[in-house]
Amino acid sequence: MSKAQRATVDALMRQAPFDGGLPPEQLRKHFEAQMASGPAPAGVTVSPSVLGGRPALTVEPQGSPATGTIVYFHGGCWVFGSPATALQLTASLVRRTGVRAVSVDYRLAPEHPFPAAVQDGLAAYRDLLDQGVPAEQIVLAGESAGGGLSITTLLTARDAGLPMPAATVAFSPGLDATRSGESMTTKHDADPLFTRADLTTVFAHYLAGQDPDQPLLSPALHADLTGLPPLLLQAGSNEVLLDDSTRFAVRAAAAGVDVQLDITADVPHVFQAFEGMLDEADAALGRAARFITTALVRT
Amino acid sequence: MSKAQRATVDALMRQAPFDGGLPPEQLRKHFEAQMASGPAPAGVTVSPSVLGGRPALTVEPQGSPATGTIVYFHGGCWVFGSPATALQLTASLVRRTGVRAVSVDYRLAPEHPFPAAVQDGLAAYRDLLDQGVPAEQIVLAGESAGGGLSITTLLTARDAGLPMPAATVAFSPGLDATRSGESMTTKHDADPLFTRADLTTVFAHYLAGQDPDQPLLSPALHADLTGLPPLLLQAGSNEVLLDDSTRFAVRAAAAGVDVQLDITADVPHVFQAFEGMLDEADAALGRAARFITTALVRT
Repeated sequence: MSKAQRATVDALMRQAPFDGGLPPEQLRKHFEAQMASGPAPAGVTVSPSVLGGRPALTVEPQGSPATGTIVYFHGGCWVFGSPATALQLTASLVRRTGVRAVSVDYRLAPEHPFPAAVQDGLAAYRDLLDQGVPAEQIVLAGESAGGGLSITTLLTARDAGLPMPAATVAFSPGLDATRSGESMTTKHDADPLFTRADLTTVFAHYLAGQDPDQPLLSPALHADLTGLPPLLLQAGSNEVLLDDSTRFAVRAAAAGVDVQLDITADVPHVFQAFEGMLDEADAALGRAARFITTALVRT
Repeated sequence: MSKAQRATVDALMRQAPFDGGLPPEQLRKHFEAQMASGPAPAGVTVSPSVLGGRPALTVEPQGSPATGTIVYFHGGCWVFGSPATALQLTASLVRRTGVRAVSVDYRLAPEHPFPAAVQDGLAAYRDLLDQGVPAEQIVLAGESAGGGLSITTLLTARDAGLPMPAATVAFSPGLDATRSGESMTTKHDADPLFTRADLTTVFAHYLAGQDPDQPLLSPALHADLTGLPPLLLQAGSNEVLLDDSTRFAVRAAAAGVDVQLDITADVPHVFQAFEGMLDEADAALGRAARFITTALVRT
């Protein structure tokens, strides 16, 4: 793949470094401007909806959809972001799989600290089941904090005795609120976006003084992972959050879970967002779509 | 996938437990009888050849082949096995990719302890390059010890200044001669084939008193992994060798390598050999073939 493309993406991200100390309102405005100001995504129909009592965006493929529903959780460090900021990624999965997605506007910190988001994730999943959608026709997916939320939604659903969905896909998930991964240090220079210090600052809104050493805040360290459905974790090798994925995948394998840890070299956090300008993004999204399609067909 | 299929495979393997204490000649006879006594593989042409000065089997697809060469290394704890015992797996990759394979009859212990096999792996790769096959049209692959050999061949080729191949695929590779993985203990009951004790016994032939704590014997622990090409590591969650793959993959990711760690739940060592009777085997081989095809097309 193209080294020039990777250098361009790295430089672009370094032009807008993340500042975890900004007030939440400013973080929200910046991220919306950055991620939700482009043209409407092609090849899909987007309409407002409600899932689990929360506003949502339903993203449907043009033409007749394939069977299945992707429940999507956007990123944004639990403080910013919305279904609109994740719309391009969500639409890409919908186009590539032919499956509709419902992207959930879960509650954000600091107004709603942990576990509000997890409660909203579970409520969204439960609502779909209550609507009569079979669990094996549902896939959870998300990026960054939303990737973490797709995992913690699984854990709470399992603990509530609900059936597991067909699969879960997480792009650069946040899975360790203690930020104890070696990559926090070893990837400090390579990561063009995040530092441990900035993540610590912004994450304090969600933590709100609670102990990060608990399963739903640091599932890579503390969660019982038995009984989870097939998982795909994608991350770049240039991110401080790399070890959130690697440690979670290793523990999932040990727990007897079908798990694919899919690391792309020399790309940053949620590099999939650079679809169309970075070959690695297109390739990774292709693998994610194939994983989803396979999981839905298998059932 | 089918729980009944998995139970059948587990029961089959427990009927013929591995005994690392048998004399090498007996291990060889048993393994040949078990793995090389069936019908010739369909859809391929098999012919004897020579690569890097060692006997080999060339496996070609029927019809016009796709561009590329798979160099295949069979399993057998460095003591037994041959291109014939790996022929069904090799043929499956050839059928699924349309790419020819050359399966190398590398030297075995105790007659030829470490590093003889690694020297043969490097000689095979170098021979192909000398024949004018571009590195980017070569994929290394192997199962068990042969998966380990595909990796150590990479390492020695890199250190010799040779260009890297397009990719490497390892099925349940052995990557830690110290057998220090937690899975050696935690998967003791789940693994229907191997125990740490049996592996220790049989591995002594290859080790021949040498220190296992060195990069080409325990690459999961000690090798510098920078500069390796895209890797696919597949393993089952029911094997004591699981952590050979997980630890290697984590270190490869940290070193900035494209790596896919692909763990299938509730299946044993080299479960891909059960193609046609275990859905997970077919699915994993499908992913391996797609990985190879993608790597060869990309170049």
